[in-house]
Amino acid sequence: MSRALEDYEALKLKGKNLQLLSSVSMLLEWDQETHIPTEGIEFRTEQIELIASLIHKESTSDEYKNALEKLIDIESGNIKSDALDDRKKASLKELRKDFIKETKLPNSFVKKLSKATSKGVNAWQSAKHENNFDAFLPHLKEIVSLHQEKAEYLGYEDHPYDALLNLYEPGMTSKKLDVLFNELKPFLKDLTKKLSKKKEKTAFLSANYPLEEQQKFNRFILEKIGVELNRSRLDFSTHPFCTGFNPKDVRFTTFTNATSFYNSIFAVLHEGGHALYELGLPYEDLGTPLAQACSLGVHESQSRWWECFIGQSRPFWEFLFPHLKEAFPKQLEGIDLKTFYEAINHVEPSLIRVYADEVTYILHIILRYEIEKAFIEGSIDVSDLPRIWNEKMEDLLGITPSSNAEGCLQDIHWAFGLIGYFPTYALGNLYAGQLYQTFKLKHKNFEEIIASGDLSFILEFLRDRIHRFGREFSALELIENATGSSLSSKPYIDYLTSKYL
Amino acid sequence: MSRALEDYEALKLKGKNLQLLSSVSMLLEWDQETHIPTEGIEFRTEQIELIASLIHKESTSDEYKNALEKLIDIESGNIKSDALDDRKKASLKELRKDFIKETKLPNSFVKKLSKATSKGVNAWQSAKHENNFDAFLPHLKEIVSLHQEKAEYLGYEDHPYDALLNLYEPGMTSKKLDVLFNELKPFLKDLTKKLSKKKEKTAFLSANYPLEEQQKFNRFILEKIGVELNRSRLDFSTHPFCTGFNPKDVRFTTFTNATSFYNSIFAVLHEGGHALYELGLPYEDLGTPLAQACSLGVHESQSRWWECFIGQSRPFWEFLFPHLKEAFPKQLEGIDLKTFYEAINHVEPSLIRVYADEVTYILHIILRYEIEKAFIEGSIDVSDLPRIWNEKMEDLLGITPSSNAEGCLQDIHWAFGLIGYFPTYALGNLYAGQLYQTFKLKHKNFEEIIASGDLSFILEFLRDRIHRFGREFSALELIENATGSSLSSKPYIDYLTSKYL
Repeated sequence: MSRALEDYEALKLKGKNLQLLSSVSMLLEWDQETHIPTEGIEFRTEQIELIASLIHKESTSDEYKNALEKLIDIESGNIKSDALDDRKKASLKELRKDFIKETKLPNSFVKKLSKATSKGVNAWQSAKHENNFDAFLPHLKEIVSLHQEKAEYLGYEDHPYDALLNLYEPGMTSKKLDVLFNELKPFLKDLTKKLSKKKEKTAFLSANYPLEEQQKFNRFILEKIGVELNRSRLDFSTHPFCTGFNPKDVRFTTFTNATSFYNSIFAVLHEGGHALYELGLPYEDLGTPLAQACSLGVHESQSRWWECFIGQSRPFWEFLFPHLKEAFPKQLEGIDLKTFYEAINHVEPSLIRVYADEVTYILHIILRYEIEKAFIEGSIDVSDLPRIWNEKMEDLLGITPSSNAEGCLQDIHWAFGLIGYFPTYALGNLYAGQLYQTFKLKHKNFEEIIASGDLSFILEFLRDRIHRFGREFSALELIENATGSSLSSKPYIDYLTSKYL
Repeated sequence: MSRALEDYEALKLKGKNLQLLSSVSMLLEWDQETHIPTEGIEFRTEQIELIASLIHKESTSDEYKNALEKLIDIESGNIKSDALDDRKKASLKELRKDFIKETKLPNSFVKKLSKATSKGVNAWQSAKHENNFDAFLPHLKEIVSLHQEKAEYLGYEDHPYDALLNLYEPGMTSKKLDVLFNELKPFLKDLTKKLSKKKEKTAFLSANYPLEEQQKFNRFILEKIGVELNRSRLDFSTHPFCTGFNPKDVRFTTFTNATSFYNSIFAVLHEGGHALYELGLPYEDLGTPLAQACSLGVHESQSRWWECFIGQSRPFWEFLFPHLKEAFPKQLEGIDLKTFYEAINHVEPSLIRVYADEVTYILHIILRYEIEKAFIEGSIDVSDLPRIWNEKMEDLLGITPSSNAEGCLQDIHWAFGLIGYFPTYALGNLYAGQLYQTFKLKHKNFEEIIASGDLSFILEFLRDRIHRFGREFSALELIENATGSSLSSKPYIDYLTSKYL
């Protein structure tokens, strides 16, 4: 083995230890959402904090820095050896970025922010419950102000918001987002208006489906889309989520409610999409960025792919609907495929983001993006949030919340300190739209194959174009490599147009 | 706050961090037994090893040693300040013992032993499966030899076996065990012979009880005996176990099998007994030995208390049997309380320890104790194990295994490196027997109260006499304090005599 390769392996071992620790933290969090007895949460919080501090200490240690410095100049980013292949070089560049990011924020600032968001989440919970924005306002003000500070610590080229955005979507800028969103906005507003006139019969959607039968059907779907159950597990939680401890142990959850079976199915497809990405990352590269997901936006592209592009498509249900009717003959009595398909694709402006359909969803994101960007640049006053929120809702979706609880207090994100995160939800749809365009070109008769119940070629496509690369490329490069063109909102617009018009 | 108290609090904080880490490890293990996907185990093993090494590093660090040395002289064991109360002094003495224990084994030896037992467990699994003792023999030889070495590292007064025994039951000696077991042996052999003549009708014990109904009934029992479900949870696993992350989060499991409901009930009572102990430890002392269980023997006394002394008693079922019949009228048709009670207390020599009744159980332990003690002193050859095992089975229980799989290969303990552990199972019964004698004296009409369905006074007794002390006293002191007399096998003999003769 060459010296450089030896050094790389030594660095990888350190990365592996960090991965062992960070997936300990993921287990602590997974257990907290799925299994912990209520009284156990206080101690659990301390455990999570301890592991986080161990990870921070280890990943910013001199020992770690030296191991990294042997291979890449941290100052300039120059790789010190030509003996490494391109993947390893890409990996080192990402490790350098991670190291710089990890060391940019002073410990005292991290603690201050963590304290503010911890209090912020508590305040938000009761403020939402009591529909009392004023109780949350001082916390939000502090969190926004700390994020302005955070942006300065992290550094940026054009806009301070980019510093925060880049934590979740490296390489993305508000300039690029503005272009994408400005194309989408008029189209989506217009499409929403056109479609929301129709009303479908949807009573069967909220019929009673026994939980055990739901899970049986959910597992059937998971098996069909390729989720390996010897490497993953499905549980219940209040808010569905997915967490990949490593590519051989991925956990995800769905809702537990007998009368919201369809929420559960689409949550299973959504989280199953995240799970497939985590399961498809190269295990042999564990300990390096090559075994990590590219970005949150790319992650979201995988979940939305299975939830919407495949899971709400006609061929998918051409195959699945007979199985569904067989499993639930009573609940679906008299419902035909057409009725069913239209019901699950019903478009209508609604107040709550997480229940939005695929046409209105991005409008919810644009609203939040415009507001949080303005927060960071200081161009709007945080105390004006309710008014601005409601005006934007009216402009984008033509409806106005009757309370802040179902308006500007609906999401936990800002309270939690996730500013710059929302755009990744929109980007996921755009990435997926562009992948879908390529997929259709590659598999001309894809609808026929899907309708026949053979779905394996879909996962193969995603494995080949997305999963196996980890963080070898940036999201924009990855999508361009996968589709042959740079990111645009047009494929998503085309997808919606051809589906709904 | 006095200087000593400040130092004590600082030390406690370090202990709290160690507790946070060790209960991370417990979660990793709990999840491995209950929820992990099969492919996740390899990575999990690495996580457990990493956390173990972090704990070892932290608990043997100079920083930790200095914090301890401020309060107690590690060499002599002298407490350096009189400002601390007796509980804190006891706590320091235990911390000193822990520190010395933790530093006595060289790292290289710990690694060698861990490798040998890790291979040993694998070899044992297939050896048991294939009934092939010879395949396990070289591993067992190495493990025994390493434990002879371990005993020398740890040090002992009379017998090298005591060094190992003390890891699980501090203060206990083989001399004391010999006395106790020599009293028990003739009595138990004789009682077994007398009782095993009778045969009961037990077909209903293996009837089909739907799993969901089982769990409902199990939870009813748990609620009755005082297990708080907001601080604990019951799951399923192949081998039932209990693990207390902290007194506000205790996890335990039972069997999942529709036709072994009674195994499940008694596993729930057994593990529920362990859980009640963990739940009863003082949370405010977390980070010190005062919030830790006294010994494995005392732990086992709590599980056997609920499983046998209460759970297989007549008054308990006088209360519970009508509820059971109501829940399972079909399975228990024509069965009256007398038949039921005799069936669950059926005594008969059997080959497998874990299924033994409360009369024969200790004979299984004596067999193992005599063999492992002889292993350590080198007075028998490891390769003679099958012959010696079978001879002892014949002598103690009057039966002979037809294969090594149901003979000397039945337990994982030796493969796992648990030599010196088995006696704690017997001691648990003796401790419980002695506590039971005191309990009966204190609550003269206890049978009446139990039969009426009020069980809360039982837990109160255990909380008051055992749980709240943690490791303030040694097991022998604790039992003597709780009962007013030093440990003897007589109360257990009396208990069995009055129950069975």
